[in-house]
Amino acid sequence: MSDFEKTEQNTVIRVPDRGAYDRKTIYQIIDEALICHVGLVQHEQPFVIPTLHARHDDHILLHGATTSRLIKHVQAGNAVCLTMTLVDGIVLARSVFHHSINYRSVVLFGHGSLVESDQEKLHALQCFTERLIPGRWQDARQPNQKELKATSVVSVPIDSASAKVRVGPAVDDEEDLQLPVWAGVLPIRQQIGPPQRDPELPAAVSQPEYIKNYIKSRSG
Amino acid sequence: MSDFEKTEQNTVIRVPDRGAYDRKTIYQIIDEALICHVGLVQHEQPFVIPTLHARHDDHILLHGATTSRLIKHVQAGNAVCLTMTLVDGIVLARSVFHHSINYRSVVLFGHGSLVESDQEKLHALQCFTERLIPGRWQDARQPNQKELKATSVVSVPIDSASAKVRVGPAVDDEEDLQLPVWAGVLPIRQQIGPPQRDPELPAAVSQPEYIKNYIKSRSG
Repeated sequence: MSDFEKTEQNTVIRVPDRGAYDRKTIYQIIDEALICHVGLVQHEQPFVIPTLHARHDDHILLHGATTSRLIKHVQAGNAVCLTMTLVDGIVLARSVFHHSINYRSVVLFGHGSLVESDQEKLHALQCFTERLIPGRWQDARQPNQKELKATSVVSVPIDSASAKVRVGPAVDDEEDLQLPVWAGVLPIRQQIGPPQRDPELPAAVSQPEYIKNYIKSRSG
Repeated sequence: MSDFEKTEQNTVIRVPDRGAYDRKTIYQIIDEALICHVGLVQHEQPFVIPTLHARHDDHILLHGATTSRLIKHVQAGNAVCLTMTLVDGIVLARSVFHHSINYRSVVLFGHGSLVESDQEKLHALQCFTERLIPGRWQDARQPNQKELKATSVVSVPIDSASAKVRVGPAVDDEEDLQLPVWAGVLPIRQQIGPPQRDPELPAAVSQPEYIKNYIKSRSG
């Protein structure tokens, strides 16, 4: 996979060592993040809206009601910026100045368009559902024609992107290393579960294996 | 505390029942979120940048190197949008169509300015540090004049804001309730720890109580 070209738009200026432009790093972050923040401009005013996303090859898929302002704005082909951020830890340095956060983020740019065919829309909805929890698409009741009609899917080809990543321990000044101040990293991770069974669920319906496996994979 | 006025800018259109305009709801979300996403416009292009924030009364504080493009853009008084999002759970409905995410988000708007005085800057840095972990400001080595000079703090008065919140179980169509599909919510929470001690920390420095307490409060 080729790298994204470094341009004025996507180049990481502050702490350039933390910048990455290779698709492997960028796509891993996009895929791990459950939601993204969509930036758009209306009447010179910026708006930032959180939403679920899915990646299909070099495209980001978003969806919403056909009446959604966000989706309409994206499908009209306006410039958008999508940012995915994973917060991995709190970095406690000996000095206040060097306190930081371990994180992985992606900032990407593109112009979207509407996904028109029912077949592509269904595939996109499968991507969204499987991102929430792998195995769900086959189990849940799939969209009918009315639901499909009420849902818009937009696809944003990734024109440009960069990642910014901070990992590792605190970086203190040499002269602070002997201070009697505890330093280290407090890791942060998203913990899933325990599941809350729907109150109206018939007693005969038991929790499927794919849900148990998913929770196990996210609580290790 | 008064509500924020509902205007064209901040009114929640999609699923209006999820919208909230009272400061209590909005400020709780702002304060619980560790980071925000800042939206800004440069040459008609939207940018969305993740960064740490702190709230001081009706203002959001951001900080960065004096050379940071983000900080410079905000301190110049340009319109910005700040969004804080907490993802609380995955909502598994019987139908794909009603799958959702439980979340709490705030979208706010304002125009920032530079915090000029050293005293106010120090107070802002105290806010940032105490937000990472309460008790840290008194323990860590506080900023010296050189570090203070290298850091810019900007303050964004909240001109307008709204929250959007989804809580609770899946909302399925009546005719799907008897389907043999497991439904419910998978809660998501941010888990902190166990702490990773800095490899260069002298053996005599033990983990302070405020760190233990913080981890305990976040892992219940």
